[in-house]
This record gives sequence, structure tokens and C-alpha cells, in this order.
Amino acid sequence: MCGIFAVSNHPEASRLTYLGLYALQHRGEESAGIISFDGKKTNYQKKMGQVGEAFGEESLGSLKGNYALGHVRYSTTGSSSLMNIQPFFVRHKKGHISIAHNGNLTNTFDLHDKMEDEGSIFQTSADSEIITHLIAKSSAKDIKGKVQWALSRLQGAYSLAIMIDGMIVGARDPFGFRPLCLGKLNKSYVLASETCALDLIHAKYVRDIEPGEILFIKDGKLESVRLEKKRKTAFCIFEHIYFSRPDSNIFEKNVYLIRKRLGHQLAKEYKPNCDFAMPIPDSGSYAALGYADAANISYETGMIRNHYVGRTFIQPSQFIRDFRVRVKLNPVKDLLAGKKVLIIEDSIVRGTTSRARIKTLREAGAKEVHMGVSCPPIKFPCFYGIDFPTQEELIASKKEVDEIKDFMGLDSLHYLSLKGMLKAMHLPSDKFCAACFNGKYPVDVPKFFDKNMLEGARKCRK
Amino acid sequence: MCGIFAVSNHPEASRLTYLGLYALQHRGEESAGIISFDGKKTNYQKKMGQVGEAFGEESLGSLKGNYALGHVRYSTTGSSSLMNIQPFFVRHKKGHISIAHNGNLTNTFDLHDKMEDEGSIFQTSADSEIITHLIAKSSAKDIKGKVQWALSRLQGAYSLAIMIDGMIVGARDPFGFRPLCLGKLNKSYVLASETCALDLIHAKYVRDIEPGEILFIKDGKLESVRLEKKRKTAFCIFEHIYFSRPDSNIFEKNVYLIRKRLGHQLAKEYKPNCDFAMPIPDSGSYAALGYADAANISYETGMIRNHYVGRTFIQPSQFIRDFRVRVKLNPVKDLLAGKKVLIIEDSIVRGTTSRARIKTLREAGAKEVHMGVSCPPIKFPCFYGIDFPTQEELIASKKEVDEIKDFMGLDSLHYLSLKGMLKAMHLPSDKFCAACFNGKYPVDVPKFFDKNMLEGARKCRK
Amino acid sequence: MCGIFAVSNHPEASRLTYLGLYALQHRGEESAGIISFDGKKTNYQKKMGQVGEAFGEESLGSLKGNYALGHVRYSTTGSSSLMNIQPFFVRHKKGHISIAHNGNLTNTFDLHDKMEDEGSIFQTSADSEIITHLIAKSSAKDIKGKVQWALSRLQGAYSLAIMIDGMIVGARDPFGFRPLCLGKLNKSYVLASETCALDLIHAKYVRDIEPGEILFIKDGKLESVRLEKKRKTAFCIFEHIYFSRPDSNIFEKNVYLIRKRLGHQLAKEYKPNCDFAMPIPDSGSYAALGYADAANISYETGMIRNHYVGRTFIQPSQFIRDFRVRVKLNPVKDLLAGKKVLIIEDSIVRGTTSRARIKTLREAGAKEVHMGVSCPPIKFPCFYGIDFPTQEELIASKKEVDEIKDFMGLDSLHYLSLKGMLKAMHLPSDKFCAACFNGKYPVDVPKFFDKNMLEGARKCRK
Amino acid sequence: MCGIFAVSNHPEASRLTYLGLYALQHRGEESAGIISFDGKKTNYQKKMGQVGEAFGEESLGSLKGNYALGHVRYSTTGSSSLMNIQPFFVRHKKGHISIAHNGNLTNTFDLHDKMEDEGSIFQTSADSEIITHLIAKSSAKDIKGKVQWALSRLQGAYSLAIMIDGMIVGARDPFGFRPLCLGKLNKSYVLASETCALDLIHAKYVRDIEPGEILFIKDGKLESVRLEKKRKTAFCIFEHIYFSRPDSNIFEKNVYLIRKRLGHQLAKEYKPNCDFAMPIPDSGSYAALGYADAANISYETGMIRNHYVGRTFIQPSQFIRDFRVRVKLNPVKDLLAGKKVLIIEDSIVRGTTSRARIKTLREAGAKEVHMGVSCPPIKFPCFYGIDFPTQEELIASKKEVDEIKDFMGLDSLHYLSLKGMLKAMHLPSDKFCAACFNGKYPVDVPKFFDKNMLEGARKCRK
Repeated sequence: MCGIFAVSNHPEASRLTYLGLYALQHRGEESAGIISFDGKKTNYQKKMGQVGEAFGEESLGSLKGNYALGHVRYSTTGSSSLMNIQPFFVRHKKGHISIAHNGNLTNTFDLHDKMEDEGSIFQTSADSEIITHLIAKSSAKDIKGKVQWALSRLQGAYSLAIMIDGMIVGARDPFGFRPLCLGKLNKSYVLASETCALDLIHAKYVRDIEPGEILFIKDGKLESVRLEKKRKTAFCIFEHIYFSRPDSNIFEKNVYLIRKRLGHQLAKEYKPNCDFAMPIPDSGSYAALGYADAANISYETGMIRNHYVGRTFIQPSQFIRDFRVRVKLNPVKDLLAGKKVLIIEDSIVRGTTSRARIKTLREAGAKEVHMGVSCPPIKFPCFYGIDFPTQEELIASKKEVDEIKDFMGLDSLHYLSLKGMLKAMHLPSDKFCAACFNGKYPVDVPKFFDKNMLEGARKCRK
Repeated sequence: MCGIFAVSNHPEASRLTYLGLYALQHRGEESAGIISFDGKKTNYQKKMGQVGEAFGEESLGSLKGNYALGHVRYSTTGSSSLMNIQPFFVRHKKGHISIAHNGNLTNTFDLHDKMEDEGSIFQTSADSEIITHLIAKSSAKDIKGKVQWALSRLQGAYSLAIMIDGMIVGARDPFGFRPLCLGKLNKSYVLASETCALDLIHAKYVRDIEPGEILFIKDGKLESVRLEKKRKTAFCIFEHIYFSRPDSNIFEKNVYLIRKRLGHQLAKEYKPNCDFAMPIPDSGSYAALGYADAANISYETGMIRNHYVGRTFIQPSQFIRDFRVRVKLNPVKDLLAGKKVLIIEDSIVRGTTSRARIKTLREAGAKEVHMGVSCPPIKFPCFYGIDFPTQEELIASKKEVDEIKDFMGLDSLHYLSLKGMLKAMHLPSDKFCAACFNGKYPVDVPKFFDKNMLEGARKCRK
Repeated sequence: MCGIFAVSNHPEASRLTYLGLYALQHRGEESAGIISFDGKKTNYQKKMGQVGEAFGEESLGSLKGNYALGHVRYSTTGSSSLMNIQPFFVRHKKGHISIAHNGNLTNTFDLHDKMEDEGSIFQTSADSEIITHLIAKSSAKDIKGKVQWALSRLQGAYSLAIMIDGMIVGARDPFGFRPLCLGKLNKSYVLASETCALDLIHAKYVRDIEPGEILFIKDGKLESVRLEKKRKTAFCIFEHIYFSRPDSNIFEKNVYLIRKRLGHQLAKEYKPNCDFAMPIPDSGSYAALGYADAANISYETGMIRNHYVGRTFIQPSQFIRDFRVRVKLNPVKDLLAGKKVLIIEDSIVRGTTSRARIKTLREAGAKEVHMGVSCPPIKFPCFYGIDFPTQEELIASKKEVDEIKDFMGLDSLHYLSLKGMLKAMHLPSDKFCAACFNGKYPVDVPKFFDKNMLEGARKCRK
Repeated sequence: MCGIFAVSNHPEASRLTYLGLYALQHRGEESAGIISFDGKKTNYQKKMGQVGEAFGEESLGSLKGNYALGHVRYSTTGSSSLMNIQPFFVRHKKGHISIAHNGNLTNTFDLHDKMEDEGSIFQTSADSEIITHLIAKSSAKDIKGKVQWALSRLQGAYSLAIMIDGMIVGARDPFGFRPLCLGKLNKSYVLASETCALDLIHAKYVRDIEPGEILFIKDGKLESVRLEKKRKTAFCIFEHIYFSRPDSNIFEKNVYLIRKRLGHQLAKEYKPNCDFAMPIPDSGSYAALGYADAANISYETGMIRNHYVGRTFIQPSQFIRDFRVRVKLNPVKDLLAGKKVLIIEDSIVRGTTSRARIKTLREAGAKEVHMGVSCPPIKFPCFYGIDFPTQEELIASKKEVDEIKDFMGLDSLHYLSLKGMLKAMHLPSDKFCAACFNGKYPVDVPKFFDKNMLEGARKCRK
């Protein structure tokens, strides 16, 4: 789970990138990096933490230049450490190369192993360093050819923004797993994981980068090449269900409206006798609004979110009871007391957080608690960039719906059907990857895949 | 605007106080302080910033003892600086005295002046230091008598938590401007500005401290004295309109439900022809829900709040355009485009923030923008603890409703009537102070009142 | 042990004070504070740590004004904490009063107790706060009278710099225990504990503040009053032996030259058969140079000081052996091997540090190790501002010279005689306090004196 | 200018390395790094600043393992930045490789260029990364062969400590420009730039690594190979003159004693009629002691060093006058007034610092100021690791001795003759590199050598 952003040809490139990353913060809270190029020098700042913590006016001021690349991340491939923060950058004879990557390659191990045999040295275990090595090793004549050759060797999911001196490159794997869009701000082109980042800087949305497309942006001109012929896409459906921001358009459709439609579908399948519907703030809110509309039931916000709870909250260590739940969300007792409550959730991963909240609602006096989920049970891990826990930890991979209901202490529980979910989408169902629900993986996955695979592999050799 | 919290007789007193302040953070984001007493030593930690930033496990660990007092604040009397952070504390022969104060005294200047003449030295310009001096100077025989004598000399608004060695004292001025409630956690008593702080630590609400009551808590026993005979109260109505948390009960009634009733009243007075009603997140949400219910119109969240925007966001200084607006709230274009939109707001102070948001909605494609406000125009400053700007800056003190409508770029604007507002309340209208709406001040205000008055006064003498 | 500095009427008052404190750093490494007055506002910065750590360009920039007062300290009265850092400051009707104090009052407890009974509140346990209260309480007509009245109530050792609005006051107790001098920089007057601080800022030395003198500096004019008639002085002889900087003139005589003379005296009393004399860097260097000259023996620096060892050195905690000794000073083996070595030390307090160094010299190959000390055995605690350990910890209060020799592992040991020491001074012996050597205390000392006395006293009451 | 340290087979390897670097701090104050290997994982900590600032107990605690490598540095090749801090480290299939380097390669540019052409990617512009790439690319069968092949390709000056998993390697170029010695601490072997680092940790000096030797240390065994047949050495004479610590033995001789002999030689050549000789603390002290002995003149310390002046001193920016000179060193006026003073200096590079100090002495009252320098004029830059300024800035490359005397404001000035300097050494003169004095460079130097050469070269290509 990562967010990427790039700006070509704007005097405030790094400040725009900072704002762009702010809008994409939900795609990765662990670390942030910005790299800029000023025609001669490449400047970079990488920090652990969220964008607002990582960058101040001073560090932005040092990121001079009209070209910039930014990245926010959760670790997917490569463990978390300062060194692994993206974008990856190298000064090379052939140019200064920086890469920001969203997704997960599935042939990382093979590429890595082969290149080390040939005498290469790797600084990190990140996919983006491998791509840099491939570009440096390519025997193609010009830099565009080198990029094309390098990407042709990759397998898996990747949406990329690359900066080579003053050229910005946007690329998306042939399946198009992850989103990537092109925007325009006056005469400058911008790349972003989601359209909400374009909105923030008042850039105009131009179009999505196409699956399998490599787009070179230089001197205000666009040049597009294709990695291979068009094939059937595998858009990640979970971007719409949960991951993207509701104010973004993803795969060319607004997320908020899709989520309301998921709520409408859910209302067709499930109508327990309740006093009102409520979300667990904030992710389930849009499906809940859609549900309440379609089911003609009141919508309430029975739990109040404390907006001050940030990364800084420290659970005082000597307390056994987990106060974090109540610190974040407090039930409105006078609203809940004696009521039959229907919670609308977007998805359930481990089930532990929801369980705690249901308990809180009951303690606040709710008479019955029911739950509708706006997607089917998540049973399979993702190898293309969503950082689900291991299959072991996915509650729906081990328990039937009824068991989950009991585990969570619900009076009733309904998951939206696969068919219902796909019906709510704006495109035919075969355009999407729904592997986490149905186990049908569009690209072969390595047998022993693990996010610390490379480091793990090395340990085994010792 | 401040929040206070105190714990008597609990081994985790300071950690509970930390949690209590977390829940009260909305009452003061500028600084936080906790003081604890362990039977011999008094320990304190005061920091600028929010509770989560101010306290870590280490500082909480140093706050040993079974008695603790905490405070979050916006400066009301006394300018902002490390020294002025409450609680105010002093080691004195008569005991270790700590005071946390919410409200505003109106005779601060007179008291201060008189005591300096007598040779007293003041460290701060805070009301709470004056109270400490009064306690130290009292010739009453015992400490309870000293506290009673000291409070009898105060005028204005005060809800107080005082810790004198192992005794906790809760007190509220005879008008009861600000809330203060008593809770119980097993055998420990707790004082809090709002009930949401009791919820967080799983304490049971016992009752409100009464207007004019001084409650001494010692060795698990309660002893109550009265400052004067009961008189008509002047509860601050703005606590319900805007200031308190929706999940709190204030003046013995839930805020969320009151706000919904304000929305119901508004629907009786104002029904423009719109496609849907929406709040500006998050304060107007509850009135908006109430409105939508009563007016039978759809409720949408047309602007999405970015939860990552905290104190750390730095508006990159070289940008002229104010990105902060969009960083915080992004409109959902596909929802708004071509629509007639009704915004429900809880209140308008300066009007500048709302104006910027209305502009954003129009840029996102809204065809018409209307606004209903769930209280009357705010025309008068508050001298009892709400930190409104000067009267000059209150938009409704200078402009008629129609002019405000034009200033904000609205198609129509309606403020809830004073009568409508009072009707939504749970108590007779003469129990409330509504001075900010109607100019009727229950307690005389000093002529040249200013929050930096004391420092200002000194400057004048030079 | 403290250092004080003040500047009157200079546009760079606080920066000069910063430099002055830098020169006086050896008088107190624990904390530093600077207060400035700009005609209207008083600005202050107090920090734990050394001057260079405590102040940056930003904090100096905030200390605006033509008047400034600075202080470096070791705690003498009052435990160490941020609150106790001097100068002590208070905004009062009668003016902004700041006080920097070097020395130790002996009637602190009585004054404190009495004033609390009268309703005063103390923020700190520092002597300087008491003086402030006395000034505030004085019924004298003008501010000069108030200062004089306040100082007349003090007993013990004090060199003071006081700032009251734009007036700077220098004062020294009637015995003149601690030094304080007046300098002039163009049209500005300066006060400093030692002349080395005048040198640094290129100020001209004018004269010492006289014992019992109060000097008021205002509008470029000096006005001097006396607390009482002149009496016999009690200059602290330890300032010359060890405490002051060698490049300072103290009590009107250069310290470096006095120390050489102490070395000369020592050579008259003690001449073991050695290959060379050497100091333990750096304090003994000047006596050693004097000794080598007078005894006609080679001077060598057999231990090399590592200048990088600052406050930041962390003894890695898992090591048992104390590396700190060798980190600071490394013996030159090829110089020492097989040699008879004579160490010249300025003084011995606990004896533990010297002992470790002697061991190091032997390990480095020294055949014999002898030691001459340029003062007599320190047997008595100081109540006037030198922070010796308790009498228990003073090695010479418990052991005879011969036992000390054995404890330290020496072949021979000689302390300069009391007579020899006094002979090396530039003034008659009855002008000095030598109480730490001979137990003759010029001012009565409280029975249960303790540097945490005030806090201790409070604890007893509980 | 760098210092290196390594420990093999000790449970406190990183803590010993921390102490070793502390002792070597004078060889590089800009940054420090320690890398440890615990059998499986490599841990590293690199920081800007001095060792004491860079490492705390926490960072040392994280450096687990029985093998460690440390480095302190001034930048020589490669500009200063966090990324360039040594040791350089890479995880590779063939092992975890870390390298600490003291010296300067002269064929860096050629090696770098060639390897980039072959597709290699460089993270830094440091010599040590190049060596790592050479090891990784070597086709030799075992790791020892790879190291030998890699080093055989290097030209210039290098003393190296390399860690490959649990093997520590020490190596010195065939000319032996820079020192490197082997020590033993119980069963553990240690490598250090200077013997003072062995002293600190109580390790026994075993022998110097020989010029042209590669020493492999593994499992408590030593294995030595030679890069080429022995040739005439080129020991850097400046290590003895100025750079090394006086308590170290360098090239098998104590530095303190050599410096005293330089003073003896100087006394043979130069005896102006002066009242006393004095050093500028601290580097000239030992030559001054030697001079005073041989010339039978008094030795005084006429300037007192302020030990508190560290990296933290901030020259307050609004002052024009440079106070830094006086902050560091204050003259003892009463000693200097009216005297004829002879300064003994170890060397003069730019001449600007000495000039300022001479001025200070005159202001303090010195009647005449003479200077003897314990080495000849430095006229030529160093390409082997001493970070002199450009030839332009070397005062002796542009001015005759007489002009230098005038520039510095001296009454007389004498440089020790080349012959005199060499005579003071313990080895025949043809064993030393004295290129900075006589321009005879033992190894060819690249034409456009520059410490930022690699980055510069890249800029040219653009």
C-alpha cells in the first residue's frame, strides 16, 4: 500500500508534491520521501512518519527544482527502515534516476538473485532498486529504450513514477492492478495515485495512465509506448471497497458513489428489524448512507470519533484494559440505550476491532446489534500490493459467517454477496481482480512469498 | 475555553487524568498540564501542545501518586506561555496547592492590584494564581474555611478543581456558567468538565456539581458547602450549540440529541428547495441529521475530511493560494455537480471559513448553495470563558443577515430564531446565559476587559 | 558555585551576557539563564546545560533590550530543576525585578518561614526569590531604599546582580566572600564574577565592587551606598587555589601568578628525588610550572587530555571498568616508563579521582609516584557558596596525611602548609576566609544546614 | 583525515569500538559510524557529529555482535552528507561487507567511470564503496582472493579495516602512507589508526600492519598475505608533526617524544632574545617544552584555553568582531605585559589563526612577539589523505618567510629546516613522504584532483 506523486516542469514542484502526498496519506502512513531535480542537482528528503511530521518548511525549501517525485508507504516488499523509504534514488552516468513504486513485483527474488551473481550490489530490498539496476544495465541505446527494456522484465503489480533528470515517466503494469492518473496544472503535468491529489493542488484530471502504458513526459510533451498488446485488465476492486479516498475517482469512477451503491445492494439482500443504521466512522459511512436511503431507515452516528487521537496517543502501559478503543470512538449512550442497532461496515479483515466496538455498543445500552458488510468475506491474501495480514489472520479464511457472528457477539451478520458487489461496480466484473474474495489470482504468485522474502532468503543462505 | 479533570484516591491517578484530558482535548488545544500528589511530593508536567504530544510514558511515569489534577487550555485570561500553563501549583507551609480553572473571573484586575500593593508577587497573569494567593492569605482556621473564604471573593465564571495535598475540591460559581460533573470509578471520585471524560475511563456519572457548591473530597468522603443561597442559573447555551462534545451530557442532557432538536427546529423555519442537506464536517453534522430527518431531505457528506491534517500541516510559505482549506476538506465533485445544496452549520463566528468552503463547493460544480444555521446571529462577546474574537470581528455584529448572505456568496441564508433555539433546549429559557446572542450579561463585566488586561495594565503604568 | 554577569545600556546586552557567561562557565555547568529588559518587556530564557547548549541564535535574538542579566549555576541552595534556574524574575507593580545570586545565605530558612506565615507564596527554594520578596515587601519609599532594606536583612555570602526595569544593581556582602567586579565597554557598564568575562567582550576593568557596597547603575551614572561600616573582609581563598580561572584577576590579583607562587612555596617545603614534575591537567598546571621553576626540575605533561570528552560522553553501561578516566587523560607510556614522577595537584577533595590517575600512571610504567598539593588538607565544609561534599566525604577530615598517601597509592605526599599558602597570597592573611582548612567560620552557620534544607524542612512538617 | 577501528571476537565489540573512536576523534570530527555483525545480522549507526554526540546507550545497545567496525571522518573524497558517512556497508550474496577507509585513492575516477559503464550503480562518491564493488565483482574463488584482487587494483593511500561477516581484514597500501596497528585484548584482536585507541581499551599493542600487507583475522587466527614485494616506504611525516595524538606511537615511535626533539632541533637553529617561550595551546605544547629545555628559557602558558568551547558555540551573528578567538584562548595579561614573547608553533597552514592570536597577545601588552615553527613551510597540497586547503590558500606557497612574518605581525619568524626536521625523526629520511614540504610525490597524482571530483565530473557531463 503506497501512494505516488510526480510533478514535471513547475517552479514549486516539491511543494506541490508535498501537498499531493498529504492527499494520499491514507495510502501509506509509515514513511514519506520527496526527491527533486533542479537541472543539475538532485535533492532528497526521506523520513519515517506521516507527511506533516516528515516535512517542514526548511526541508521543502531545500528541495529545489522544477521536477519532483514523492512517495508515501507501508512496507510491502522490504522491511521498514530509513534506508528503504522511497523514492529510491541513484546518481548514475546515464542520469540521476529516481523511482516511486506502488504495487508488488512477483519476480523480485529471481531478478535480485541473478543480478547479485553478476556482481551487482543492492542497498535495499525494495522493488524500486531492482528497477533502477535494470535501467542501468540495459544495453538499449537511449534512456527511453532502457526504461522499456527494464519494465518488460517485471512481473506483478506496479504503478510507477520515474524521474530521470528532467524527464518524468509514468507506467502501469499490463493488468492495471493499481491506479495511476495524469493531471495538468497550467503547463505542468502531474502524476498521482488518486484524483484527490489533483483536486488538492487544483490540477485538472486528464486521464488514467493505461494498463501496459509507459508515458514519457519531457519539455511539456507526452510520448506514449506500450509494453505489450492490450489484454484483459485486473483492476483491484478493494481500492473501491475500502482503500481509496471517497472523493477520488478510481478506474474512472467516483468512490463515494460506488460505496453508496454497495449500500443499496446490501439493502436488497439484508433488512433486519432495527431502529437505525450507523457506520463505524469513518470508512463505512458511505455504504451506510446508501443503505439507509435504500432501506428507508434512519441514519445515525452512534459513535463519535475523537479527532485528536493521532499517532501520538500512548496507551499508558500499566493499564490492562485497552482504552484505545474508547479514546478513538465514544458511543452516544442516550441515543443507543435500549435500541436495536444496525452497523454498516465496509469490510472485515481480522474482526478484532469490530468485535471490540460491538462490545462497546452493548455496554452503552444497545439492545440488539446487527451488522451488514458491504463486501463478501475476505479469504485470500493479496500478492499485488494490499498489505492484508497472513491468511491465518484473515477471520473469514478460518471461520464460517455464523461463527464470525458469534465471535463478534452480533445478533445477525450479513456479507454482501460477490454478485451483489460486482453489480455495484461501474464496469463488467471480468475487468476486476477480486482474488482476495474468490482466490482467482490473475498473475502467478511465488511459492514462498513473504514481504521480507529477500532478507529472509539471505538469512537462509548463512 | 478550558477543560479540567481530577482524580482522588486511585493508584493510576495521573494516567486516568491523561485519558480524561484526551477526552476533553476539544476544550483547549494549546497546552496541557497534569499535577499529581503522592502523599509527600507533588509532581508536575506542563507542556505546550495537545495532550498526546505533551505527555509520553516517561512523563506519566514520573507523575506518581493517588491524586491528580489536569487541565487543557486556550488562553482566556493571561497570554500564552509555558509559565501560564495550568494547573497552577505552589508548595506552601499550609500545604501543596494546585488549581485548575475553567471560566473567567471578572474581578481579576482589582484582586491583583490590591494584593501587589500588599507586597505579593505574581508569577503569572492567570486567574488560578490569584485564587492560590487568596487561599494562602486567608485567616480562616482550617483549609476548608480558607478555600471558602477565597472563593467568596471571586466574581465571574469559574468551574474549579483544586488539590490541596490529598484533598480534591470541586467548585462552581453561583451562576453555573461552565459545566462540572462528579463521577465514580470503583472507590475513587473523579471530577470532569464533561461526561465524555468519565465514559473514557469507564467511570460512572454521579451528578453535576451544583452552581454555588464547593465539594470537598477526602478519604473517600464527600462534604458539600454552599457559597450563597441558590439563585437563578446562567448555563452557557453555547456549550450545547457548539462547544461540548456530542457524546457528553451537559447540564444533564445529551448534546447530540439537543443538536438534532436544533435541526428539527431549523426545519420548521427554513426549507429551501434543495437536492440534499450536508454539514461542514464535523461540528454541524448532528444538526444536519436532525434537519434532514425533519425536512425529509437526503443527507450527504459532500465534503470529505482528511483525518491526517493535524497541527503539523505547514502551509508551504511561498504559495499565495490557501491550500489549507482543501487539504482539510475536499468536495466530492461527482456528487455536487449541478446540484442545489443546503449546508447546515452549527454557528457562524467570523464567517471567513464558511465563505471559503462555499466557494469550494461552487468550484466543485454546485449549482446553488443555501445555508441554515442552528443558532441565532452571534453579536456580543463572551466575558465568561468562551474565547470569541473581539466584537469587531464577529460578522453578525456588523452586518445584517442579508449582507452576510452576500458576503459568503450564498443563494439563501437562515439563522435559527432565538425562540426556536431556546425551544430546542431541555430547560426553561431563563436558566441559560444567551448573552452572545441577546447581549443580556448576567454578571457585570469590567469596562476595559481584555485577555491580556493585566499585562496591558502594567504596560500602561510605564 | 555560580557565575553572574550583567550589562547596562548596550544594544547587544544579551549577546554580551551570553559571551560573559561563556567565560564564566567553569563557575557552574548545570544550568544557564539570561534575562533582558527592552524598556517595556522583560524577556527570559533559562535552560539546563552549559551556555553553548542552552542558547542558540534564536533564543539570543528573542532576548531584546539594552539591559541584561545572566547566571550560570551549580545548585547550592535549592535542588536542581528548571524552575530553580536563575536569574529569578518577577513582574511586579513596582517594576520588573530580576536577581542573579552567587553565594549562600545563612538565614534563608528563617526568612522563608516568616514570610510564608504572612501569606507569601514561594515558587522556588532559591535565595534569589527570597530577596525579591523582601524588595516587594519593603515599605521604603523608593526602589533604592527597598533594595537597601532587603539586603540589610540578609546574612551569609552574596554577590548579587539585580535588574529592576532599566536599573542594574551590583552588591557584595560585607565580608566580600565572593568576587564581583565592574567593567566598562565604551559607555556601558558591566558586572561580572571574574575579570576573564570582561576580557572576552573587550571591556575595561574599572574596579571590584567593595564588600558591603550596593552600586546602582542607571542612565550611565553610578551611585554607591554602603550596607554598614567597613569591617574586616573574608575573601574566599579557594577562589585563588582552585575555583577561578587562571586568566582572571580575583580580589585584585592575577590567579595564574598566585598559583605559580603557591608552586614556589611548595618547592620550599618539599623536594622528593624525581625525574620530572607534571600536573594532572589542567587545574594543577600553574602550580606545577611554579614548582618546576623553583625546584629546577623538568616539567612534563605526562598525561594527555582528550579535548573531545564533554558532557556527551556516555560510559557504556555494561562495562564494569571505568573507562572515563582513560578517556579523559591518557598517559604517555614512553615518557613515563621507569621514571620517578612527581605530580603537582592544586587540591584534593575526595581523593578518588587522583587515586585513579595515580593507578593509571603506575600501569603506564612509572617507577615511583610522588605528589605535592598546593594547599593544606581540606577538612571543613563551606557554608558560603563552594559546593564541597559533606564533611564525611572530605578525605582529609577522616584520614591523616600518611593514610591518604597509602589510600592513593603514593610513594610520598606533601600538602602545602597553611602558613606557606597564606604567604603566597598578595594580601595579609586575616583578609581571607580559610575556613575549609582551619574551621574558623566568619559568619555563624545554621545548625542543620543542607542544600535542600527548605524542601527538607517542608517534608518534616508533613 | 580519518580514523578507523575494528574489533574481532569480543562480546562488547561495538562498545569497544565506540571507545576506540573516542580516542581517534581528532582524526575526524565531522561524522562517525559503527557497524556490528552478530553472526546473522549486520547492525549500523551512522551520524553527523562527534562520537559523543552521535552515539548514546540506546544506539550502542542496538549494535549487537562480537564483530565491529568504526570510522570517524573529515571528508576527503566525497562531499559531506549522511549518505557518505563511513563505514560503507552492503548486504551481498557473498556476505555482508563493511569497509572503513583512511587515506585517498588516486585512481578513484578511472575505477568509478569504468564500473558505471558496465552497469554498476553507486550510492556514494566514497572510495570505500568502490572497493566494495571490486570485491563483489571479483571472480576469485574465495573471499580472501576477492579482497586481494580488489586491493591490487587500487592506487594511492589506504589503510583499511574490512569486515566480511565474521572476518576482519586490515590492510595498508604498499607505501604505508597512513598508520594502522594491531592490538590484542585478551583473546580478541583489534585494529586501530593509532595506539592511543588501544591504550584506552587496555589492549596490548602487537605490531603495525606492514605496508603492502593484508591481514585476515578469523576465529582468533591471523593470516597475512602481501600485495607486492616490499618497496621503499613513504610514511606521512605530518602525522608526527601535527596530526596524530602525542600519546600515540606512530610508525613505531612516540609522537610526544618526536615533537620534543623537533623543539630541540628548533633551539639549535633559532634563539631570539625573549623572556619566555609559550605554545598556542594545545598542539604546539610539546615542541615548546622541548624548545624551552634545550634553549634553557622559561616555559609559560600565556594563553588559557577555555575547555567549554565546543561545537555548540555560536558566534552571535550580529557582532562584527570575531569573539571566537578570545572565547577559546584568553591571554594572561599580568604575565604578558611588557614582555618579549616567543611562540612555538607546530606548523602554519593558512596563517590566519596564528595572526589573530599574535594580535591578541600584543593587545594584552606583549612588547615583542617572535615565533618558531617546528617544521618547514608547507608549500604543496596532499593527495594522500591530509585535508590541506588548496595550494592557493597555503600561505607558504605564495609568500616568502619574511612576508609571512610581516603578514602575521611578528618581530621575527623562523621555520625549522627540512634537514632539521628529518634529523628529529627516528627513521632514515627516505622512509618518509615529505611532499607537502618538498613537492616530491611518491605516487602519481591525477591532473584535476579535487575532493568533489566525482560529483564534479558528473556535473561536467551534463
